[in-house]
Amino acid sequence: MAQDKKLVEQITSMDEDFAKWYTDICTKADLVGYTSVKGCMIIRPYGYAIWENMQRILDARFKALGHENVYMPMFIPESLLNKEKDHVAGFAPEVAWVTMGGAEKLTERLCVRPTSEVLFCEHYADIIKSYRDLPKLYNQWCSVVRWEKTTRPFLRSREFLWQEGHTMHATAEEAVAETVQMLNVYADFHEKDLAVPVVRGRKTPSDKFAGAEDTYAIEALMHDGKALQSATSHYFGDGFARAFDIAYTDKDNKLVHPFQTSWGCTTRMIGGIIMTHGDDRGLVLPPAVAPVQVVIVPIAAHKEGVLEKAAALRDALKNAGIRVKMDDSDQSPGWKFAEYEMRGVPVRLELGPRDIENGQCVAVTRFDGQKRFLALDGVEKAVAELLVAVRDGMYEKALANRERRTYVCHDLEEVKAALTHGDGFIKGMWCGDEACEDKVKAETGVGSRCIPLEQEDLGPVCMCCGKPARHMVLWAKAY
Amino acid sequence: MAQDKKLVEQITSMDEDFAKWYTDICTKADLVGYTSVKGCMIIRPYGYAIWENMQRILDARFKALGHENVYMPMFIPESLLNKEKDHVAGFAPEVAWVTMGGAEKLTERLCVRPTSEVLFCEHYADIIKSYRDLPKLYNQWCSVVRWEKTTRPFLRSREFLWQEGHTMHATAEEAVAETVQMLNVYADFHEKDLAVPVVRGRKTPSDKFAGAEDTYAIEALMHDGKALQSATSHYFGDGFARAFDIAYTDKDNKLVHPFQTSWGCTTRMIGGIIMTHGDDRGLVLPPAVAPVQVVIVPIAAHKEGVLEKAAALRDALKNAGIRVKMDDSDQSPGWKFAEYEMRGVPVRLELGPRDIENGQCVAVTRFDGQKRFLALDGVEKAVAELLVAVRDGMYEKALANRERRTYVCHDLEEVKAALTHGDGFIKGMWCGDEACEDKVKAETGVGSRCIPLEQEDLGPVCMCCGKPARHMVLWAKAY
Repeated sequence: MAQDKKLVEQITSMDEDFAKWYTDICTKADLVGYTSVKGCMIIRPYGYAIWENMQRILDARFKALGHENVYMPMFIPESLLNKEKDHVAGFAPEVAWVTMGGAEKLTERLCVRPTSEVLFCEHYADIIKSYRDLPKLYNQWCSVVRWEKTTRPFLRSREFLWQEGHTMHATAEEAVAETVQMLNVYADFHEKDLAVPVVRGRKTPSDKFAGAEDTYAIEALMHDGKALQSATSHYFGDGFARAFDIAYTDKDNKLVHPFQTSWGCTTRMIGGIIMTHGDDRGLVLPPAVAPVQVVIVPIAAHKEGVLEKAAALRDALKNAGIRVKMDDSDQSPGWKFAEYEMRGVPVRLELGPRDIENGQCVAVTRFDGQKRFLALDGVEKAVAELLVAVRDGMYEKALANRERRTYVCHDLEEVKAALTHGDGFIKGMWCGDEACEDKVKAETGVGSRCIPLEQEDLGPVCMCCGKPARHMVLWAKAY
Repeated sequence: MAQDKKLVEQITSMDEDFAKWYTDICTKADLVGYTSVKGCMIIRPYGYAIWENMQRILDARFKALGHENVYMPMFIPESLLNKEKDHVAGFAPEVAWVTMGGAEKLTERLCVRPTSEVLFCEHYADIIKSYRDLPKLYNQWCSVVRWEKTTRPFLRSREFLWQEGHTMHATAEEAVAETVQMLNVYADFHEKDLAVPVVRGRKTPSDKFAGAEDTYAIEALMHDGKALQSATSHYFGDGFARAFDIAYTDKDNKLVHPFQTSWGCTTRMIGGIIMTHGDDRGLVLPPAVAPVQVVIVPIAAHKEGVLEKAAALRDALKNAGIRVKMDDSDQSPGWKFAEYEMRGVPVRLELGPRDIENGQCVAVTRFDGQKRFLALDGVEKAVAELLVAVRDGMYEKALANRERRTYVCHDLEEVKAALTHGDGFIKGMWCGDEACEDKVKAETGVGSRCIPLEQEDLGPVCMCCGKPARHMVLWAKAY
């Protein structure tokens, strides 16, 4: 037992140093590795398998809604990036530039895509001619590069993996509906699959995506009381379409511009899982994306029949479509318990001679440490139900954490008082003036995260200036 | 019917201009698009769906053999690329260099990965410490960049999509076995799924991958008699391991180097399908990777019951796991026939009032234009069997084409005489001397493609110099 003590001690406690706790989990649970490429990360097999599960679930939903996958070049010529003014202003300061091909200097430098709006626009200008060509519902899975100064695994790195949807529609209404629909796809994925409660909202004008008319986002609250913007969905109006000369002949034979959206989510969601569900024993994974949903640890494995029975249990679960692993290595059960707790495996099954005699196994759920017996007869069904219960329990726990850290405030003094209990979500009214956003930030440290779609009336006046309020805003410190 | 005539005429005939025929298919079948990024391509939804099907099949096979997916950074610092001498000499002339991050000049330039051996080696040096850590069986799906001068869609472009497996083993034998195993995975995939016959072989020393001890490849013969190298598998020995200080403690507690492989296949395989199976009506897709395996065209769709019956047929096939599309647009049947022939859909089902009366539909197989009737009762099974027969027929047809263009030659005069019938595979003996390879190339235009694993004895002497022969070599012009 000395060994598993040591193992657990390797993780810094969350309360002691949250940032170190986070990177400890990233490295000790084998999610990421470092290289000599500064600011980039290796996504190791255990981390990448989480991403693959996310991709599989989301990709199926995108396709069910009629979206098609494409692949655009990773390079953007500088002149193309410059075509939409707000967009280039937002991205040019943080792109990587290719200036040489082989031994030759390029006549025009190319940036590595930080996002692909301009490439999609150039393509759409080529292929959208008639109302029959609409809507275009394209998506791309790829990596993008943004030359960040300070980086952290998953949360902010110079290269990250994501998907970017880019759609074109005949009417503004249809494009807005798509923007909101995709926000809801992300929100449902977070709540139902990742067990991460989120607030759906619209960004204030100061916080919109470069070139967008409206940016929607989902915001989740992390263990340390900071917000994580977990996915975004943008409505562009016809601004890019005008800049890129995308026009089509409508049913009345008039040449008009289509309306555009884009929406994306990234490997950052893995960071969100860590900071929503993780604890001082390590990672806690939601069953839907866990690479291993159930680990079987044979107890007294040298005793006759134990390994055979454990293997039979594994095969039964595997045949039922559960991602299961049996660890019959020569490490001690205690070491294995700690190891799979650190790796966040949702359910551990222990099976020893006494259990076999009693026709049962011990099931321990990672997120709450609860132990129970499951009859081996019909165990597939019981485990499948347990995985559903784990998701529900994780969601309720995360929601309770969030509610505990959410404060309703009516003026800046209340905000400051609330924050003495630790960081969290502040709900407060806002007049709509950017000067008030800046002042709230300067005086209390929290910024506007979004204008929640589900509005509450917390009073008639802005919590900052006392003038008439226009929106209830969610405020927080953020990643 | 004027309309579908026009459509077919848009494709240049293969005999008239093979290169133009090829790019016509790439663009008219909506596989690729062009952008202002020179030498790169857009892989459009129809083309990308083929790639997704390839990925799905191959990824499952890789995983079944114990491989795990990872993601490495897309950048390689120049100093890291320089660590293995042969490797950098092979790749440095054709990489794209990032020299600026935002507004700042980088202190060390970074190349966009042309391949990731050095990144995997750096990581393996970190994580391989003991014999217990072996083997490491990693794979990565990503895009890579090689700054080619002349480019063609799928065959040679500055950026392309691929997978790269990188594995580490305790012994040379095990690494060689992995190299050959993965070559066979690629060969089986080509022959069984893509219906493309291939020759499995080893490259001659002059044609090995930069840094490899042995390069294996599969070679396919295209319609124009040129060879396409369709996938490669490399054995590295412990050369990279020594250059990168990758060492582990073996069971005898000695510090030793592991043995390495890498293997890859790319979007080039889509080009291989076009040039192996395509004809003057357009693309011909093998069922395993066709985005649409069966298209249903209703005939006299305005007649009562036709659309309902066609929809029922579609649903029945869909439920049987067949990728099916019904085209009930207002285009004429003739237009639709030509359209789906151009897009290479393996099977077309026609269903009109008379067919419905007779309880049947008409099935036309794309690769040979054969027409037959299928009873609507039990049609799922009949269509599934037809798709298998289509694959078999496509393979036999491609094999017959290849055999027709394969010549056994004993001296350079015979090679020249053979090539007067058109390009093709030449089988001929070789002494092992690079000077003879060069001379064959200079005098006849064909180069050594590989030393087939399945050797034939075509005589005792080199077809070039007349000295004792060591290998039967496959020679051809190549893409």
